[in-house]
Amino acid sequence: MLRSRTLLLLASSVLRLSLALQDGLHFSLESRGTNIDGSVPVYKNPKASIEDRVADLLPRMTVQEKVAQIIQGDIMYYIANPNEPLDDTLAYNLTGLQTMNEQMSGSVWAGYLMPWNKIVYAINTAQQYFLENTTLGIPAMFQSEGLHGFTDNGTTFPSPMGLSASFNRDLVTQVATVIGNEAEALGFSQVFAPVLDLSRELRWGRVEENYGEDPFLTGEMGTAYVAGVQGGRRQNTSSTATARVAATCKHFAAFGSPQGGLNIAQVSGGERELRTNFLKPFNKACVDSLAIMTAYSSYDGIPAVSNKHLLTDILRNEWGYKYWVTTDAGSVDLLYTLHYTCDGRECAAKAALENGIQGEMGGGTYTYLTIPDQITNGTIDEKYLDQTVEAMLRTKFTLGLFENPYAYPNYTDYLRTPASREVLHDIETEAIVLLQNNDNTLPIKSSVSSIALIGPQADRVTFGDYVFFNASNNGITPLDGVHQFLGSSEGAAFSHVKVNFAQGCELWSNDQSGFDEAVSAAKSSDIAVVMVGTWSLDQTLLWTPGTNATTGEHVDLSDLGLVGAQLDLVKAVQGAGKPTVVVFVSGKPVAEPWIQDNVDAVVQQFYPGELGGLAIAEVLFGAVNPSGKLPVSFPRSVGTTPIFYNYLKGSRPISPGEVTPNGTLVFGHQYVLDSPVPLWAFGHGLSYTTFSYSDIKLSASTISPTENFKVSVTVKNTGSVDGKEVVQVYATDVVSSAVTPNQQLIGFEKVDIPAGGSTTVTIPVDISQLAVWTLDSTWVVEPGLFYINVGPSDQVYLTANLTVT
Amino acid sequence: MLRSRTLLLLASSVLRLSLALQDGLHFSLESRGTNIDGSVPVYKNPKASIEDRVADLLPRMTVQEKVAQIIQGDIMYYIANPNEPLDDTLAYNLTGLQTMNEQMSGSVWAGYLMPWNKIVYAINTAQQYFLENTTLGIPAMFQSEGLHGFTDNGTTFPSPMGLSASFNRDLVTQVATVIGNEAEALGFSQVFAPVLDLSRELRWGRVEENYGEDPFLTGEMGTAYVAGVQGGRRQNTSSTATARVAATCKHFAAFGSPQGGLNIAQVSGGERELRTNFLKPFNKACVDSLAIMTAYSSYDGIPAVSNKHLLTDILRNEWGYKYWVTTDAGSVDLLYTLHYTCDGRECAAKAALENGIQGEMGGGTYTYLTIPDQITNGTIDEKYLDQTVEAMLRTKFTLGLFENPYAYPNYTDYLRTPASREVLHDIETEAIVLLQNNDNTLPIKSSVSSIALIGPQADRVTFGDYVFFNASNNGITPLDGVHQFLGSSEGAAFSHVKVNFAQGCELWSNDQSGFDEAVSAAKSSDIAVVMVGTWSLDQTLLWTPGTNATTGEHVDLSDLGLVGAQLDLVKAVQGAGKPTVVVFVSGKPVAEPWIQDNVDAVVQQFYPGELGGLAIAEVLFGAVNPSGKLPVSFPRSVGTTPIFYNYLKGSRPISPGEVTPNGTLVFGHQYVLDSPVPLWAFGHGLSYTTFSYSDIKLSASTISPTENFKVSVTVKNTGSVDGKEVVQVYATDVVSSAVTPNQQLIGFEKVDIPAGGSTTVTIPVDISQLAVWTLDSTWVVEPGLFYINVGPSDQVYLTANLTVT
Repeated sequence: MLRSRTLLLLASSVLRLSLALQDGLHFSLESRGTNIDGSVPVYKNPKASIEDRVADLLPRMTVQEKVAQIIQGDIMYYIANPNEPLDDTLAYNLTGLQTMNEQMSGSVWAGYLMPWNKIVYAINTAQQYFLENTTLGIPAMFQSEGLHGFTDNGTTFPSPMGLSASFNRDLVTQVATVIGNEAEALGFSQVFAPVLDLSRELRWGRVEENYGEDPFLTGEMGTAYVAGVQGGRRQNTSSTATARVAATCKHFAAFGSPQGGLNIAQVSGGERELRTNFLKPFNKACVDSLAIMTAYSSYDGIPAVSNKHLLTDILRNEWGYKYWVTTDAGSVDLLYTLHYTCDGRECAAKAALENGIQGEMGGGTYTYLTIPDQITNGTIDEKYLDQTVEAMLRTKFTLGLFENPYAYPNYTDYLRTPASREVLHDIETEAIVLLQNNDNTLPIKSSVSSIALIGPQADRVTFGDYVFFNASNNGITPLDGVHQFLGSSEGAAFSHVKVNFAQGCELWSNDQSGFDEAVSAAKSSDIAVVMVGTWSLDQTLLWTPGTNATTGEHVDLSDLGLVGAQLDLVKAVQGAGKPTVVVFVSGKPVAEPWIQDNVDAVVQQFYPGELGGLAIAEVLFGAVNPSGKLPVSFPRSVGTTPIFYNYLKGSRPISPGEVTPNGTLVFGHQYVLDSPVPLWAFGHGLSYTTFSYSDIKLSASTISPTENFKVSVTVKNTGSVDGKEVVQVYATDVVSSAVTPNQQLIGFEKVDIPAGGSTTVTIPVDISQLAVWTLDSTWVVEPGLFYINVGPSDQVYLTANLTVT
Repeated sequence: MLRSRTLLLLASSVLRLSLALQDGLHFSLESRGTNIDGSVPVYKNPKASIEDRVADLLPRMTVQEKVAQIIQGDIMYYIANPNEPLDDTLAYNLTGLQTMNEQMSGSVWAGYLMPWNKIVYAINTAQQYFLENTTLGIPAMFQSEGLHGFTDNGTTFPSPMGLSASFNRDLVTQVATVIGNEAEALGFSQVFAPVLDLSRELRWGRVEENYGEDPFLTGEMGTAYVAGVQGGRRQNTSSTATARVAATCKHFAAFGSPQGGLNIAQVSGGERELRTNFLKPFNKACVDSLAIMTAYSSYDGIPAVSNKHLLTDILRNEWGYKYWVTTDAGSVDLLYTLHYTCDGRECAAKAALENGIQGEMGGGTYTYLTIPDQITNGTIDEKYLDQTVEAMLRTKFTLGLFENPYAYPNYTDYLRTPASREVLHDIETEAIVLLQNNDNTLPIKSSVSSIALIGPQADRVTFGDYVFFNASNNGITPLDGVHQFLGSSEGAAFSHVKVNFAQGCELWSNDQSGFDEAVSAAKSSDIAVVMVGTWSLDQTLLWTPGTNATTGEHVDLSDLGLVGAQLDLVKAVQGAGKPTVVVFVSGKPVAEPWIQDNVDAVVQQFYPGELGGLAIAEVLFGAVNPSGKLPVSFPRSVGTTPIFYNYLKGSRPISPGEVTPNGTLVFGHQYVLDSPVPLWAFGHGLSYTTFSYSDIKLSASTISPTENFKVSVTVKNTGSVDGKEVVQVYATDVVSSAVTPNQQLIGFEKVDIPAGGSTTVTIPVDISQLAVWTLDSTWVVEPGLFYINVGPSDQVYLTANLTVT
């Protein structure tokens, strides 16, 4: 989302528009908020079916009320002193609230950092106004961000890439449950998450917001998130309510592969690639999510926001999606300011509404305010407005908002609870991926007397984007985490360990003046840990001129190596001669083959949450056995991308060359002086123990095209410590009518196996995972042979043959 | 093309297959090579129409004869001593010829380097055999390569990227005429050119084989090439013959944007991108070309070789293409060895034949030998075979081959003629692009007493790929060219100039031991010219293990900077303090922003032809005023690609950062530390004079969607030397129903203007250039405003408004 900084400036012009719109609208009494006979309208009956309530309410609405229902309002319209959201004055601006009610009252953006009591006051005030002071009494949906934490001082979890690295569906559901709890308690009913874009274009700034490069994993993580955020029912609401907070799957669709990695740039692709990759996670995770947000970009030349094929043909008609669809901030205006498929606001509003059956988010010029006139003059058919309003009302009834749209009196009981802290700690530890561990360099042994903790990420809280202003103040740095661990009972065996800290350099500079101190720290220690990587900023600072970052929305890289002096710092420290561990704290893969070749161990911590500093300490010292796996492949350089593992057959010829450390050029062909093989591939992740796989079995070796099947394998922990393993199942369609991926993840399960223990893991596979999008534009599971590979990554596995007849 | 090195090994298995095929085929007399009544069959009548001749011949053919007609043979089957093509024994192997006749006689690959008298003997022998010793007497098409020169010791011209840099249609036609002349005289009737792929993925090794990144320019250059190669009529042939050598447009389609730049990898894209970019040059240049070759790659998951939509729906039905379509070498087999859309040879043959109405080139396993059995058992419908044979026969009748398929007795009169040499010299000079010329550093002034000529490209003939073994022996190096120029009458004013040569380094090494000599040469000279770049190899060496190259087929780069020590050499020479000129001799853009920032002048010589060394000397000393323009944009780094100028609107946000020379990081967003703006953009090219543009006029400012129009502008040579200018016309569709390019070249004209002179250039524009591929899957020129920009590049122009009503 691009939040508008022009929003408040627009308020006066919006008001002027609204006066014009009100003229000449007249409705008969029976179509309004009460019935002529005095009975309670069906839409107000909590026991009526949702469809009946929608059908009853819609005809009662004026065109203007309908339009207001599908334009996003903003809490800043009516809170007192909107330029000072942190001020906690409990007052509101009635004129602003009335204006919002008239024009943009269906949903209200409230994703600002402000005191909890103030946001509760503001939401409750508005909801009471909507319910009690308006003709129809329709509550609003209050909205916030929630990719990895509720963004009004809620618990900050690892960025989605980190959540996904856990490969732990249950844990992601628990995380999303916390996010939903915090939102729900404060009176919010929609969060703009999950992001189901694919991280297949690694230069793009928003890679960290996704669940990785793979459509299946992304769909599973998205499903887990939606279940957590939505699952349950608001207090004191109707029995027909089946969710408490609306998840918002975004960005529909194919937003994650912009040309050149440049945010919002066009996406190239055909129908098969759309179906096979970009749409799959949405089709899996979002059919039951109560909202979907459209993308800014175009796909094969059609802007997503006005893409009838995507939004109507596929989403509404083919998938039967019946809930709320919204644009992203300001994106309707882009039709005439960026894509130029429209000549102005009227065209843009019509295109987005009629093609997309979607509402309009703020951040633009409120083009939807043109709808009433366009209906009057016949430019827009009111049926599209009706369909859009119906979807919005359906979402609200499903949330039970008509019965209770308010914050909970005991909201503090839901916020930052001890139970949430446990979930946070669990996901922090499971999100960490051990990439390399030569000679079992890790975990650090209790025999060491000192460690050097070095690098610009060592004493810093680095969160990903989509966190509130100064959220990092809630975090613990790795340096503090190490000290905390060493002082804890878990770290008792290491209490003697001395920590020699040296920052070495800044993230954002080539200044090497701190190298000497860093090298000294390494030399005077038994082991050196160097923490480097990328960085983002919170949602306020990320858009503030003069700040810097290397990842996050609209922060796109042309190079995937370490920025500034960081690589040289690693080299200098490694040159000190002590065992050297590199920890990447980053939002995306860092492409530094030198590090793979030259250091003893490498740990990947995708942007963590508040307890990330503690979790990395626990992993380094072995209190936690790492169990994360890569949701994204690591290229050797930007020039060898895309690097995703599930490329179409024949698309990754390998004949590598290299520049050797002494500068000799060894010529290959593909690539001439590099390799298209990743440093570390999707699914990769080591443990402090070892696992052996045996006895792969299929529930049936021959099945019909409509039959699901199961894959089982015995996994033994052959090492000396307990450990968790992610058992992965990949399929290869040996011969297919269209070219299919060389392999494709179709199932996984994370299991916890004690040292020496063994377990048989059975993984169900939905047969639809084997379908190909054929030339006839349908999904078909084609008869023939499939290789079913099971193992700890996409590179190492046992194979069973499956025949579809 | 991947030439098969297994071809000869396959001959014996082919023979075995052929015996099986011959069983049981019987035909009645009247369907064969003579009529029952003794009259001459229509197909042998030179005065009959081509369609009548095709219709008469086809029913006379057995299935086996039909199949043989559409499988490519190879001259090595029957020449004596095939392992020694350079041996000039004039003898042949009758058994091989008979086998070829039975199985693969429609076309014959003969693109080998061998003595001219030997190739003439071999071709004439075979043609005589086909005409006189076979039942039907159908001549073969003998085939060679010809991208930038006939590949049996014909004249080598600049690589296609260089040809295109001339922006001179007439000159490209003259080049192709020479290629056609040389082929025709030796008895060849098909050359595998032009390449109409687009250079939009710069890592791809074959970028040099294309005419650049732009569909319009590529279509114009392709049209010019086809006209030259095909134009005319063979000696002593029928009046219905309208061409003398078949051009072969390739690779149909979308081959030039493989994923990751990896040769043959899949191409992502939708129908709109296909139509708007990839197909346009073919639709322009190839409807009248007598052959088309399909691509190896897949597009949105469908292999080109079996893509019915491309090959039948669009090419045959929509465009009405009626001539010969062939696969590329071995590409039918890739259906079951790479794409895996087939399970074996039978499926592959059926898929290629039925979907593609195309013949099979060698280099594989001759899957088409399975066709007779597949027709017998009903797997393949003979109608597809018939359609394919008809297309082949139509091409042959159009070439007049039934009347005269032989080499000309006076063939030497056509080869390497003085007139050809003039064409060569003209294109060499017009292909050179002056990229930068600070303070008029160039041309070198006659006041200098010495120049340093430095670099690994200075005393080297660097041709692009698709030249015959050791073709570079025919070329002149830049060093020799400089000496030749200085000793010539044109160079009289410079005869005193001393040339200090130093290689400095090898192209393929980091060894800097030659730097001192290079720096000394620069210090002791008045100006330094450093020649660096990329290199390819001839078609023999390129595929020989142990060789090295940085461009050419299957030689794909992950980095677009200079390889090895070259950039450091430039820096060292520039550091010597003398005016420094860099000449890039390369097949693709070299991404080195340091050079743009730090040297005084930069010249781009895309891989030249045999006189490239002389031409660069003439440009450096000002005997030739450079007039080339870039057919491809130069990125700042591989991570900022794709860089093509005609990106879709909204797809190139610019908020650049940089690393300053002192290492300071200046943070931007897009990209964080680089810029998506090219170093030099498409269309750019300087002159030793200056031009001013004025008085842009349209033939009409308002037109209908079916009306062509003209753009005129007055161009004045405001400098002191004569010069040629490429006047370029770009269009922007201000509002369109689908997203259109921010600008698109729609016309250009190269004009020669004397110093102080002025000319009004009028450029016709076909209105179809303004069409958009709509949501309704048709081309529509949509009503509304278009900006028509005219100027010397895509960056600088005058604008006129055009309204379509």
